[in-house]
Amino acid sequence: MDMHQLTRQLNESNDAKIVLLVADGLGGLPIEPNGRTELETARTPNLDALARGGVCGLSTPVAPGITPGSGPGHLGLFGYDPLKFDIGRGVLEALGIDFPIGPKDVAMRGNFCSVDAAGKLTDRRAGRIATEKCVELCGKLRQNIRIPGIEVFIEPVREYRLVVVFRGDGLGDQVEDTDPQQLGVPTLDPVATEPGSARTAELAKEFLRQTREVLRGESPANMAMLRGFACMPPIATMKEVYGLDAVALAVYPMYRGLAKLVGMRIADAGKTLADQVAGLEREWSSGNFFFVHYKYTDSTGEDGNFAAKVARIEELDAALPGIVALKPDVLIVTGDHSTPSLLRSHSWHPVPTLLAAKTCRPDPCTGFGETECLRGGLGQFLAKDLLPLALAHAGRLGKYGA
Amino acid sequence: MDMHQLTRQLNESNDAKIVLLVADGLGGLPIEPNGRTELETARTPNLDALARGGVCGLSTPVAPGITPGSGPGHLGLFGYDPLKFDIGRGVLEALGIDFPIGPKDVAMRGNFCSVDAAGKLTDRRAGRIATEKCVELCGKLRQNIRIPGIEVFIEPVREYRLVVVFRGDGLGDQVEDTDPQQLGVPTLDPVATEPGSARTAELAKEFLRQTREVLRGESPANMAMLRGFACMPPIATMKEVYGLDAVALAVYPMYRGLAKLVGMRIADAGKTLADQVAGLEREWSSGNFFFVHYKYTDSTGEDGNFAAKVARIEELDAALPGIVALKPDVLIVTGDHSTPSLLRSHSWHPVPTLLAAKTCRPDPCTGFGETECLRGGLGQFLAKDLLPLALAHAGRLGKYGA
Repeated sequence: MDMHQLTRQLNESNDAKIVLLVADGLGGLPIEPNGRTELETARTPNLDALARGGVCGLSTPVAPGITPGSGPGHLGLFGYDPLKFDIGRGVLEALGIDFPIGPKDVAMRGNFCSVDAAGKLTDRRAGRIATEKCVELCGKLRQNIRIPGIEVFIEPVREYRLVVVFRGDGLGDQVEDTDPQQLGVPTLDPVATEPGSARTAELAKEFLRQTREVLRGESPANMAMLRGFACMPPIATMKEVYGLDAVALAVYPMYRGLAKLVGMRIADAGKTLADQVAGLEREWSSGNFFFVHYKYTDSTGEDGNFAAKVARIEELDAALPGIVALKPDVLIVTGDHSTPSLLRSHSWHPVPTLLAAKTCRPDPCTGFGETECLRGGLGQFLAKDLLPLALAHAGRLGKYGA
Repeated sequence: MDMHQLTRQLNESNDAKIVLLVADGLGGLPIEPNGRTELETARTPNLDALARGGVCGLSTPVAPGITPGSGPGHLGLFGYDPLKFDIGRGVLEALGIDFPIGPKDVAMRGNFCSVDAAGKLTDRRAGRIATEKCVELCGKLRQNIRIPGIEVFIEPVREYRLVVVFRGDGLGDQVEDTDPQQLGVPTLDPVATEPGSARTAELAKEFLRQTREVLRGESPANMAMLRGFACMPPIATMKEVYGLDAVALAVYPMYRGLAKLVGMRIADAGKTLADQVAGLEREWSSGNFFFVHYKYTDSTGEDGNFAAKVARIEELDAALPGIVALKPDVLIVTGDHSTPSLLRSHSWHPVPTLLAAKTCRPDPCTGFGETECLRGGLGQFLAKDLLPLALAHAGRLGKYGA
């Protein structure tokens, strides 16, 4: 029996409300040996109070040593095993621009590039054209490309990057990238690696043929390449597997997209954390699970800016009373992965996590930080195990067996 | 997706070097209630310094409560799930005498025994004949036994024990032992439990028929029995699954054999720990993963000699500076299992483990010992999860998902 079979079977309804506050990339590292991490450096009276009253621990997003992207990181927190539910790159890119991807779609990452008269690649990123130019070229492609039998969507992302989506029947996603990963050779034709994806490969070939025609005369972006062919994986909703009416309050499209993937309703999150807390209050009666996503603990970490990450954590802490005031039955604060400013990137380090609820057993944690969490009652656990714990503390899981 | 698929997919190359120092049977128990273990009793300034700078924890070799042999214990440390990769006893026995076992081989543990005129078993160990006699009898068998269609290898081990290897095509290993496990009955004929092993059973029957002929007139060892029929399991190399050029420095053949099983190159380890450290230095430029095996923490534990185990741990500690001086990017010190001298045997107790690298998050451990490790940042983990962590700290694993 897998966990989703179990949560379906044990599901019980009540009025309890769960808040999952994800501080993206929350976990960190000290800059100096045996120093303090960003979270340990930040002044966080509200998080510390929650840690004292609740239970703490360290979450491993995917598996020990594995550094997750945002997709696997969030799926784990939503209770979906990220090694089982593998979200393809094309789908993630589409989610990242708020594209309403559906079950008949195959999504691809595209990028404009430069080729010479013989079709040989001279610049894989077309001189990193401006986003405005990308928007203009996507419009031109959209106007001119017609492929019988399917709908084609062409959406700009940023600079030389775009998203291409084919919508139709019988479109597999097992197609190889067309980027040869070297200059001086022609871009590749799309090749299917299984029969069910042969039609997609043919359509992509035709798409690229027409692209070449339409962009002839453009410079430097006179061709495109396609990568990361991906269909929506079959994912049961949080309503189906947990009986939850889940609502997402996320400022950035990628996280709204990931929430949509598991069937959350997307609420207006505005632009700031204050907007998100106001949105939470507004939506309070409309759901029983609320995912609030806070981006800046990750982006400051990626910038390598320790002080800025500390400041962003303190900003998050200051917003907490507004959430606590709503009296959620279960309040979880965690991250989808660590982003130590020392490393300027996502990392594999376990993520400090706290769960506050009336049914928490006391643990010795006196504040919220990586080292404190080592002593916490949650221990070290896989992220995918957190949601069943939230359900339990919310009184939404019955007894297994007699 | 399993971990080896993941490590293959995420594999990144660099110049980082990893040292895995395995103190066999490292974990222990106090002799007196609430006393100190062998490791806690030993004076280990160098291990303690590594523990302070690195991250500690406790490794469960196979699963909670499971006492491993050397095979599963080491496979786990090499990142191969010991419950998935089951190395048969015949293969382990062959590895233990440095026999170069190959993919067309089926290996068996043999033992000389005594039978009466009617072929009924009178001594399962042939009076524990001396090793010299075993060598002599193996030579006699080797000279006289001929089985058409295969090569037969007959190698002495110790006392009444030998290794028999058949080399040929289509040799399965699903054959039952010929030891009836009681006296006064005939030794059993080999019986295949699946059709693919029928030929092996026939060949083994012929081998035992000729053995009886050749040994007629010998006393007390006038017959042999075969147990633990086993082929080499299909195991991908560490190069394949992790991209590592792995080098083993092990004094004892069993551990060289286990290292060979996962594709390590076997370097000359000499006879002492000092030889091994010198070998490590000599091989430093030729690999990026180094397995150093130290036997005596296990053998003193098996002897039930607490003080000797303490002394052997101190000897290991004294050798550490020679390894640290090479500046490995990741240095792990652990054991393949516990061997408490109190129990005089391998045990299931978790094994103290430390990992030192620049990217370690601080933990409160101030020394290296079983109780200190309980507070460590690695927590309690399965041995098979250690290698991905080593790869992560070495910067050799990319991000999973976008």
